[in-house]
Amino acid sequence: MNQTNYRIDNLGECRIPSPLTSLVAGADEEARIMLDPILKKGQVNHQEPSSLELSGPRRKIFFTPEKTRAAIITCGGLCPGLNDVIRSITMVLWYRYGVRNILGLRYGYEGLNPDFHHNPIQLNPDVVEDIHQKGGTILGSSRGPQDVGVMVDYLQEMQIDILFTVGGDGTQRGALDLVEEISRRGAKIAVIGIPKTIDNDISCTERTFGFQTAVALSQPSIDSAHMEAKAVRNGVGLVKLMGRDSGFVAAYASLASSDVNLLLVPEVSFSLPKVMHFLEERLKQKSHAVIVVAEGSGKELLPPDGQDASGNEILGDIGVFLKHAIQAHFRQNGRPVSVKYIDPSYTIRSARANADDSVFCFRLAENAVHAAMAGKTGMVVGLWNGHFVDIPSIEAVRQRKKIDPSSSLWTSILDNTGQPDLI
Amino acid sequence: MNQTNYRIDNLGECRIPSPLTSLVAGADEEARIMLDPILKKGQVNHQEPSSLELSGPRRKIFFTPEKTRAAIITCGGLCPGLNDVIRSITMVLWYRYGVRNILGLRYGYEGLNPDFHHNPIQLNPDVVEDIHQKGGTILGSSRGPQDVGVMVDYLQEMQIDILFTVGGDGTQRGALDLVEEISRRGAKIAVIGIPKTIDNDISCTERTFGFQTAVALSQPSIDSAHMEAKAVRNGVGLVKLMGRDSGFVAAYASLASSDVNLLLVPEVSFSLPKVMHFLEERLKQKSHAVIVVAEGSGKELLPPDGQDASGNEILGDIGVFLKHAIQAHFRQNGRPVSVKYIDPSYTIRSARANADDSVFCFRLAENAVHAAMAGKTGMVVGLWNGHFVDIPSIEAVRQRKKIDPSSSLWTSILDNTGQPDLI
Amino acid sequence: MNQTNYRIDNLGECRIPSPLTSLVAGADEEARIMLDPILKKGQVNHQEPSSLELSGPRRKIFFTPEKTRAAIITCGGLCPGLNDVIRSITMVLWYRYGVRNILGLRYGYEGLNPDFHHNPIQLNPDVVEDIHQKGGTILGSSRGPQDVGVMVDYLQEMQIDILFTVGGDGTQRGALDLVEEISRRGAKIAVIGIPKTIDNDISCTERTFGFQTAVALSQPSIDSAHMEAKAVRNGVGLVKLMGRDSGFVAAYASLASSDVNLLLVPEVSFSLPKVMHFLEERLKQKSHAVIVVAEGSGKELLPPDGQDASGNEILGDIGVFLKHAIQAHFRQNGRPVSVKYIDPSYTIRSARANADDSVFCFRLAENAVHAAMAGKTGMVVGLWNGHFVDIPSIEAVRQRKKIDPSSSLWTSILDNTGQPDLI
Amino acid sequence: MNQTNYRIDNLGECRIPSPLTSLVAGADEEARIMLDPILKKGQVNHQEPSSLELSGPRRKIFFTPEKTRAAIITCGGLCPGLNDVIRSITMVLWYRYGVRNILGLRYGYEGLNPDFHHNPIQLNPDVVEDIHQKGGTILGSSRGPQDVGVMVDYLQEMQIDILFTVGGDGTQRGALDLVEEISRRGAKIAVIGIPKTIDNDISCTERTFGFQTAVALSQPSIDSAHMEAKAVRNGVGLVKLMGRDSGFVAAYASLASSDVNLLLVPEVSFSLPKVMHFLEERLKQKSHAVIVVAEGSGKELLPPDGQDASGNEILGDIGVFLKHAIQAHFRQNGRPVSVKYIDPSYTIRSARANADDSVFCFRLAENAVHAAMAGKTGMVVGLWNGHFVDIPSIEAVRQRKKIDPSSSLWTSILDNTGQPDLI
Repeated sequence: MNQTNYRIDNLGECRIPSPLTSLVAGADEEARIMLDPILKKGQVNHQEPSSLELSGPRRKIFFTPEKTRAAIITCGGLCPGLNDVIRSITMVLWYRYGVRNILGLRYGYEGLNPDFHHNPIQLNPDVVEDIHQKGGTILGSSRGPQDVGVMVDYLQEMQIDILFTVGGDGTQRGALDLVEEISRRGAKIAVIGIPKTIDNDISCTERTFGFQTAVALSQPSIDSAHMEAKAVRNGVGLVKLMGRDSGFVAAYASLASSDVNLLLVPEVSFSLPKVMHFLEERLKQKSHAVIVVAEGSGKELLPPDGQDASGNEILGDIGVFLKHAIQAHFRQNGRPVSVKYIDPSYTIRSARANADDSVFCFRLAENAVHAAMAGKTGMVVGLWNGHFVDIPSIEAVRQRKKIDPSSSLWTSILDNTGQPDLI
Repeated sequence: MNQTNYRIDNLGECRIPSPLTSLVAGADEEARIMLDPILKKGQVNHQEPSSLELSGPRRKIFFTPEKTRAAIITCGGLCPGLNDVIRSITMVLWYRYGVRNILGLRYGYEGLNPDFHHNPIQLNPDVVEDIHQKGGTILGSSRGPQDVGVMVDYLQEMQIDILFTVGGDGTQRGALDLVEEISRRGAKIAVIGIPKTIDNDISCTERTFGFQTAVALSQPSIDSAHMEAKAVRNGVGLVKLMGRDSGFVAAYASLASSDVNLLLVPEVSFSLPKVMHFLEERLKQKSHAVIVVAEGSGKELLPPDGQDASGNEILGDIGVFLKHAIQAHFRQNGRPVSVKYIDPSYTIRSARANADDSVFCFRLAENAVHAAMAGKTGMVVGLWNGHFVDIPSIEAVRQRKKIDPSSSLWTSILDNTGQPDLI
Repeated sequence: MNQTNYRIDNLGECRIPSPLTSLVAGADEEARIMLDPILKKGQVNHQEPSSLELSGPRRKIFFTPEKTRAAIITCGGLCPGLNDVIRSITMVLWYRYGVRNILGLRYGYEGLNPDFHHNPIQLNPDVVEDIHQKGGTILGSSRGPQDVGVMVDYLQEMQIDILFTVGGDGTQRGALDLVEEISRRGAKIAVIGIPKTIDNDISCTERTFGFQTAVALSQPSIDSAHMEAKAVRNGVGLVKLMGRDSGFVAAYASLASSDVNLLLVPEVSFSLPKVMHFLEERLKQKSHAVIVVAEGSGKELLPPDGQDASGNEILGDIGVFLKHAIQAHFRQNGRPVSVKYIDPSYTIRSARANADDSVFCFRLAENAVHAAMAGKTGMVVGLWNGHFVDIPSIEAVRQRKKIDPSSSLWTSILDNTGQPDLI
Repeated sequence: MNQTNYRIDNLGECRIPSPLTSLVAGADEEARIMLDPILKKGQVNHQEPSSLELSGPRRKIFFTPEKTRAAIITCGGLCPGLNDVIRSITMVLWYRYGVRNILGLRYGYEGLNPDFHHNPIQLNPDVVEDIHQKGGTILGSSRGPQDVGVMVDYLQEMQIDILFTVGGDGTQRGALDLVEEISRRGAKIAVIGIPKTIDNDISCTERTFGFQTAVALSQPSIDSAHMEAKAVRNGVGLVKLMGRDSGFVAAYASLASSDVNLLLVPEVSFSLPKVMHFLEERLKQKSHAVIVVAEGSGKELLPPDGQDASGNEILGDIGVFLKHAIQAHFRQNGRPVSVKYIDPSYTIRSARANADDSVFCFRLAENAVHAAMAGKTGMVVGLWNGHFVDIPSIEAVRQRKKIDPSSSLWTSILDNTGQPDLI
């Protein structure tokens, strides 16, 4: 992973604008950050460790700001911070580099396909001034890809020099296809990704934007589940949270609440009888229980919910499944329970970013602009060991980041919930 | 409705404790408030208008504080403010009257039935100090009645002098049964109701506690629906809010948001084709729409969802029904829409009261205590034309308060949403 | 007070636009609401009671919507809800009446004085769409009057037909001067006030916008004072809240919190030695205390803080004064206390309206528009006994509404804080 | 810094309790984390890099849980998360190790001095259940040290085996004195620090609890300053935030807001004339400005505000100073400005922790317990490169962590505010 990020070309001769010059005065542009800073007893390392390139402004930049046209798209489901990212990219391009031609393309990759007749929005500081105070995305979004050739045609026709793709791993895979086609044509267009996954499951970045907001906004639902569970005899509060493949939101939300008695995540298998046994014991002792389940948990337990257009099985909803399974189990036991099920998903996804995520979005977007202006491409920005880094997109999408059940995070979960092994 | 509230007996000779004496110095204990303060042109009224008794401390009280034992129960679903009411009753009994024997009975009317073996909680200022900062009810709740004879036996056995019943109209009907049986036995037990309905649909009180909190807490869901709807082409945000028979929560929540395009409430009929037509027009113009529906709306449209234990038909869920109906309609039209459906019910019901409701809860509870100590019974406390009033329970449960489609409230809804007639 | 509100003229022949027609179908346009709906024992009333005119749309309107130009100004200090009012006036004028010419004048009455060269903002639904989600006022504000002749010249020159004045009693007095001058000139310009006072101290309206938000937003400060006071031995938390002449914000904020031990308001005198004595007792028993003081309290105790430009004495700050007085008293006593003083004023004034105030703002503004279009003038809109009313401005500014120490509100304060008489 | 943390002694023979055994199964107890994971071009490192010991449960523990008595103190000013830490220490000791004897000592180090007659609180899961939902500290706090001999006498007399000291660098220095005296006496008492500084200025930990909450809770004040500034011509909103020596809170709060035009921190000097010049330009262009100043900024500009008991000069308040300086400057210029000054300090310090800090507090406290039970002493827990670490106290208090003006954080500030060099 020590390869340098893709570059459009050798660096041009354009120099960084004066307001930025002071910022890079003493910077070591070739410094890198180790992937793994752990020292193990007796371990000797003779190879250069895997590392990532540090983000930041560069002395020489590739694009001439006054001639540059940049564009932004937002793809996939909503995530707190999208408008922060759009705003920050616009502000840094405008004020720090002097770029005056910034387009907001509408509805994700559809905005690069002229067949949809979506008119781009001209972005400038006035347009974006207050957008970070609202959830959603002012550009709109869509799911799925468009034809690569059509999109590169559009980029060339519109004379777009830089494309910022804000989206999840599907989006960044799509961006890599664009990079390849652009490169094949010998065009000089930078494609820079800002990874967007509320699940925080992208590799090589310890954090994605919206995640901390999601953890914070999960709290009222867990509180409600707790209050509802305590208000009746044998009350069970059940909350489903985001997390298709990785249970980070559910895990941190549970730790933050400290009122969760059982956490189920995709990374740690569980048997239904063990869950029921645990619940029985808990209700005997305390007469109420709170369960948090990540949406991708227990896939093996779910009956398929029909097939989608491509013939793939659609999985049912683990939250609804568990609710019914618990009700049925205790009804059979002759000790009926009252299950209150809460699914706050949309309310969380469409919220504005909290303060912590707003800071993170700004710094991500800022570094995405620095990378783009320096002529990098085929990369995403991220955070590693507290430093902003430029990550080759190919590494970022290689595999998902997951909770390691032998990690100190999972230890904290067990310490916090007191839950036993459920296998 | 001008009858005096039921009283246990003629007023005793016990005098109000000294810290309260100053409060009632100049009070007119027989003042009443008119039900209808509207003057119509040319209308002459020769009869004394209908009126309600004003709440407040009385110079002579029925119960001797140091010998009095009071008890509180909370019944039915959760509602913001339950703990405020419990706390306030306890505080006013303790500090203002010097009552030292206050029981919190567990799990609603079950707490009056010894078969359930629920142990009461001894309430005092230390126990209740911070409970208003949490949602739910520290006493627990249950639905439905218990045997009246058993309950009055328990009241007598436990030597309870005053019972505060915090609950909806079912609870207050149950309280009237208790009052009747108590009276038949010649016992001297006061039963005072604090009406609890998040729907704000109890007669003779312009407001019930928890309602304003519910309106406030509906806002994030409507905002989310709005953001989700705007984020895609042809997005429809659909929010179901409380309101079985009366749409006040949904109406005020829509007014507060000012982002709602269509409000459906139980009091105003609508035809599904008209709703679809309105949606079509709206999406053509604006490409997104926000709908708020009160849970009891459109009962006539819903297919029954099985039968309950008593053989009554259970109605389906209007929110889920509308979601599917809209999706199907536009799919058939060849112009598919994306419907995001949000049901925040539990999160609202289990929240703590907001500041406005905390004030209201305190003053309700305070006046409930004043009424109880004065020996009133078979009544609930409420607010009318800005004054706290003692309402005969029989009047309070006679019929539900509803939105009048010819009222200025409905005018405001039409002005705010711009929605047409849907019949 | 039964005089009809001023009218520009006899009602014109213009008829209400069709979307509004249905709203007024069955309305009784001459219905009025009694000022005092209390019935006193044995009291016989042979006179017609004082009453106010009910607000609402009228069948005949004075202004022809398509030819009408309306303008809005916001004056004085910030108050939650200003943007809600601006937005609502614009929306109702636009969608309900079809008025297309709406000006937002800048910086209060300065906007009517061409010497300031403030350019008005053209208001329409796009401009105001999201402004209610922010505090402050998009129009800006200023304090104090401008020359009446200059302002009426401007109104005539700009062909403004309706002026909405959003401001406190100074602003509404200024509006009355405008009405008089307009009338003297025989001009046909309606001037409608929307009363703005966060203190809720305007006569004839039981509520002003921003008040409920202020009460709600006071809570974190009182909580903080409570936490800080409890964190140390002999801790005193002191919070100063809004209320120059009337202590409603401080009173409701204290009731909402239920953690306040002493409330000081302008309407109820207190002696400093009594306050100190109370504090001594409280600290002996509980080791901490929370005090809320309205800014206009204890004027007689304050040393003058210099003189203003006109030679009037400027009063010092009661919060700072009390802080120092308490510290000095207990230092002398040899039992030093730790006073934590919090003044949240700006944070509250500049916040956005909460849900309850947003509803209220919408309905106020809506009724202001109905009144204006019907050709009323020299009046403000308000709420009385739960009904929106048109109040002659002369009545609204005659005297301030204050807390009556013999009212049930003050009883509630005494019940809640447990504070004694301090005189 | 590679020395092992102090230990009381060689590890005892006591084995970790069974619920914890699985947690440490595969752990490498001797793994360490590098202080600096940056790789510089061409740099070859032949020495072992500086590193810190990873936190976590250990296979062998020093104290026998059922015989262990632990105690907790909280010292210094309030900080969000104190109750989370108290709760988490109690919960992990109780449920994970089976320790049943846990004391909450009152009012900081005073609680270790019997002369104050503060009675300790017996802590258990019931007592601490909900305390994390409130700000402040249930134990109370005080500033300053007590006599070391007296405190160690008390620890021995009370047979306390483990003391958790939650406090800032003064507190941790005091803890080191205790460790020394304990060691001199050959006593077996572990002293483990949990660093508390809302300013986030302790070395060797990238984060301290309460910091993220402080950043989040600064937002309403900055918003208010922004709204107030925009509401008038030439409005200046000025917010003072925490930060005696390090401006992290002010810096992150400014980044989160994106509405700040000028940030002043202790680490970056500024001249008053340059500040005024910047303000003049800003007001000319935009007519309003928002300034955030950390409390320890511009010390060299402040006139002394008297002397304290020890004869040291007390510095004045930079916020108040700037407010007056700006007013005076522009009054002299003949272009008066309206400065609205906001100081939210207490409201932030006394708030409850947000979700992110609650997670962090739990994990800090958890690792503090693991360290204590393993017999470590003279250390504090912290976070480094995303891993929890045990830091020798002597390293943690050696010097303060500060904003490096050549760091990417300061670059972000300049990118975000657009402010120039002010020297």
